[in-house]
Amino acid sequence: MVGGGQLARMTHQAAIALGQSLRVLSTGTGESAALVAADVVLGDHRDLDALRRVADGATVVTFDHEHVPTEHLHALEEAGHRVAPGPAALVHAQDKLVLRRALTEAGEPQPVWAEVSTAVGVADFAGAHGWPVVLKTPRGGYDGKGVFVVDDVDAATALLDRFGTLLAEQRVPLVRELAALVARSPLGQVAAWPVVETVQRDGVCHEVLAPAPGLDDELATAAQELAIRIAERLGVVGLLAVELFETADGVLVNELAMRPHNSGHWTIEGSRTSQFEQHLRAVLDYPLGVPAMTAPVVVMANVLGGAASEEGWAGPGLDERVHHLMAHWPDVKLHWYGKGQRPGRKLGHVTALGDDLDEVRARAVAAARYLADGVVDPAFAFDEEHP
Amino acid sequence: MVGGGQLARMTHQAAIALGQSLRVLSTGTGESAALVAADVVLGDHRDLDALRRVADGATVVTFDHEHVPTEHLHALEEAGHRVAPGPAALVHAQDKLVLRRALTEAGEPQPVWAEVSTAVGVADFAGAHGWPVVLKTPRGGYDGKGVFVVDDVDAATALLDRFGTLLAEQRVPLVRELAALVARSPLGQVAAWPVVETVQRDGVCHEVLAPAPGLDDELATAAQELAIRIAERLGVVGLLAVELFETADGVLVNELAMRPHNSGHWTIEGSRTSQFEQHLRAVLDYPLGVPAMTAPVVVMANVLGGAASEEGWAGPGLDERVHHLMAHWPDVKLHWYGKGQRPGRKLGHVTALGDDLDEVRARAVAAARYLADGVVDPAFAFDEEHP
Repeated sequence: MVGGGQLARMTHQAAIALGQSLRVLSTGTGESAALVAADVVLGDHRDLDALRRVADGATVVTFDHEHVPTEHLHALEEAGHRVAPGPAALVHAQDKLVLRRALTEAGEPQPVWAEVSTAVGVADFAGAHGWPVVLKTPRGGYDGKGVFVVDDVDAATALLDRFGTLLAEQRVPLVRELAALVARSPLGQVAAWPVVETVQRDGVCHEVLAPAPGLDDELATAAQELAIRIAERLGVVGLLAVELFETADGVLVNELAMRPHNSGHWTIEGSRTSQFEQHLRAVLDYPLGVPAMTAPVVVMANVLGGAASEEGWAGPGLDERVHHLMAHWPDVKLHWYGKGQRPGRKLGHVTALGDDLDEVRARAVAAARYLADGVVDPAFAFDEEHP
Repeated sequence: MVGGGQLARMTHQAAIALGQSLRVLSTGTGESAALVAADVVLGDHRDLDALRRVADGATVVTFDHEHVPTEHLHALEEAGHRVAPGPAALVHAQDKLVLRRALTEAGEPQPVWAEVSTAVGVADFAGAHGWPVVLKTPRGGYDGKGVFVVDDVDAATALLDRFGTLLAEQRVPLVRELAALVARSPLGQVAAWPVVETVQRDGVCHEVLAPAPGLDDELATAAQELAIRIAERLGVVGLLAVELFETADGVLVNELAMRPHNSGHWTIEGSRTSQFEQHLRAVLDYPLGVPAMTAPVVVMANVLGGAASEEGWAGPGLDERVHHLMAHWPDVKLHWYGKGQRPGRKLGHVTALGDDLDEVRARAVAAARYLADGVVDPAFAFDEEHP
């Protein structure tokens, strides 16, 4: 697996059960996956030699991020390595303009868009579809980075000067954001998890609610079928996360990821087959596992470095917070990524399961918030001396 | 963790979620845990220097087997290392005579027993309690090794000549074997999983049925309380598996293990907190997790090297069998230990979950049997070409 972050870390956990050991290409020994995997190759994912070193002797090369240059992936394939997903599929998760063109060609629902490289182009687009306009860098964005909402030509010009060609999109009147996660094997077997709601703040996923609460059955099925169609059309092997905007008129495709995805962390405990196991099954060309849920409601909450990660924090330290979390929520599952604490960083996640959405969500969010900010939710007040 | 077998391998999986990385003392690079852990110390568990190397800098030293000499554990403690379970507790899992004496002193139920070192001693015991007599080596036995059922003085004499002092036990008229698994933290918090039935053949565990089918509620509670009393009395920190004989009159203690145990593998998917996570929580002095079951019925079946591990096997190879297993039972969870195949060896296990014991058990056993022996159960017949 190219990339040593938390996705590789959790994929390694799943690999162990399958009798595999994940080899990881990591930029440093301190990365999440490098801390726990037996077989770590140090190197940069933009360095073809490093890629060759991690590929050599591996059954298949796969990814925990989208940042490997396409030409390097072709070079690996030409050298006889199996790459999953392959470069022709992966480029749709790497380049938003490529994705938009492909979806237009396929006739799939997406926001109105245009490729813009001049102020006039943006002004024309806004003239036709109104301000504000969403401008996105075609490559390299994640977690809200590379996405800008602009209200006038001056702001657009500044971005064009800085980034060059951009993707312009009409701002969509959102009901909420959803994600449809599917897996596809080389032979075309697919498996779809229930569609989930992703609760974002500032472009960063904070919570995932599985299944998406109150989602119309037909719309849920349509979203799953949309994801399966995209996986088939693009020839995805492995996981495909389709990030969706739910609007009054249905769903629109926001963007794609072709790897285990934050919207699928809930599957570790919440599905009979976790996204990490399923990704491995798919890229290793094993039959896929059942994606059935293990509880009626599952909520995942990210632990993003917060007040407790800031310098000068005088509250309980991390180990003490973990202690309190476990004492107070003995049924909340913790996944800690082994990273240094830093404000805004995804440090870990927690998962809660149960029958009642409000209760399960409150439990997950309170636990994550306590870890991140040291804040005790009044609904979950406890005595830190005697948790 | 001292020992690099499958218990350490699965403990490492659990450690990753807790933000930990398990350091493993392994006798070779090819051991189950050494294949997947980032931090492997090579050495023998009987070598104090090796133990010091694995203990140095570790939060706590724990075990995946019972074979570390007690004096070495005292030496580690004297050097300031935390050892969990401590040597005073662990000796009861290491030495069956020590266990028998402690249970007699505690007034806990166990088979009638005596320490014997002469043929006359065995004859006296048999005179009082009848033939056959069960003779056990006090130390070093596992999976039925070191246990002998003898019918006369000659057979007993041969064993005494070979092993010296033995534990003699009355053969108990068994209803079945049960196991009560509990965890205990340094502060004395305990958590008990439901009592399970362990299905043994030739002293080797083949299946674990959770919860033990049809077990009387009072007897189940009594077995859990017995395990908790033993954990408290012996000062166990970590997991305690109490292997029990169910008889017409209640339960008797067979033997103890103070580590994750084969009778608890079902907890990985079958309990909100797996035995591996719970052991880590306990030895790291974190609060314990909820031991609730995630499904009404969970069955674990061991995959013991069978016909398919024998030389000259002409059926489908391991990878092909795994492929068929996944295709035919997409909801059966596989845990493969990464070991070389050898007849009789514990190569992995499978877990099935559901509502109906007969169905769940048949599914788990058929899947395990197909992996081990390449035998397709008629009830699960499938076309190998098109699974």
